[in-house]
Amino acid sequence: MANNSRVIKSDGFTWEGVEKKDYKTETTNFKDISRFSLLGEGPDDHELNMQTRYFEIKPEGYSSLEYHRHPHSVVIIRGKGSVVLNNTVISISVNDVVFISPETVHQFHADKNDYLGFICIVDRYRDKPAIPDEDVINEKVGSEGAARDKIRL
Amino acid sequence: MANNSRVIKSDGFTWEGVEKKDYKTETTNFKDISRFSLLGEGPDDHELNMQTRYFEIKPEGYSSLEYHRHPHSVVIIRGKGSVVLNNTVISISVNDVVFISPETVHQFHADKNDYLGFICIVDRYRDKPAIPDEDVINEKVGSEGAARDKIRL
Repeated sequence: MANNSRVIKSDGFTWEGVEKKDYKTETTNFKDISRFSLLGEGPDDHELNMQTRYFEIKPEGYSSLEYHRHPHSVVIIRGKGSVVLNNTVISISVNDVVFISPETVHQFHADKNDYLGFICIVDRYRDKPAIPDEDVINEKVGSEGAARDKIRL
Repeated sequence: MANNSRVIKSDGFTWEGVEKKDYKTETTNFKDISRFSLLGEGPDDHELNMQTRYFEIKPEGYSSLEYHRHPHSVVIIRGKGSVVLNNTVISISVNDVVFISPETVHQFHADKNDYLGFICIVDRYRDKPAIPDEDVINEKVGSEGAARDKIRL
């Protein structure tokens, strides 16, 4: 083919030629999570306005508690866990779809005995995530309740 | 929550409140394929620049043979099949990722005894697919070979 159309073969939850990366390095409020850049990050994929990534969280691990202007489209493809969306905590498992709208404080958690793996699609050009301070947490997550108990900083 | 963040719970390969729709009605060159609009098509999801859809093809069915300017990001989440990308045919199964770059003539096929289900992400604003004529097929798919044998019109 004279273009970059392609199939990236999977072997379970790894992909041919796709590196398993650290989640991110700017923040510390996460645990046992890896990132795989599947589509849209390389120079070859300049036609894509969005990036497709796979995130995998080990049992009891979690993503950063954060919020930002850009939305997330998420499809769970492995295991079980839960997601904090502002003042709610919702159980999630394979094939569930999650929409995270702008400015929602969110955090993904794997269950105690399960991995949680999900496809997360974002705009190529997007704002940087912010870590909520105590005021933002009180306003969006609440000062008590299930979501407040669930979040990790 | 004061926003439209949400979890759409799945029950296998259907989703709560998500209608199973016809694939499309403008063309006839497809067989046994359904569409589920997961995110980005409703007025509630105006913040999303992309749409997340699930397509499901029954055994021996296939999508339209088509090409267009907008790219596709695809993740297989059910079954087995193959994809024609111009002059190649590639086997695909669960968790494989497919990138379809602009102007690639493409068609998804389910295997004889398997469903093929995949998440397909596209720009919200995009050009209409075109059905290749014989000249385009000869140029892109070729006048003979595995891809030429595989395509259905």
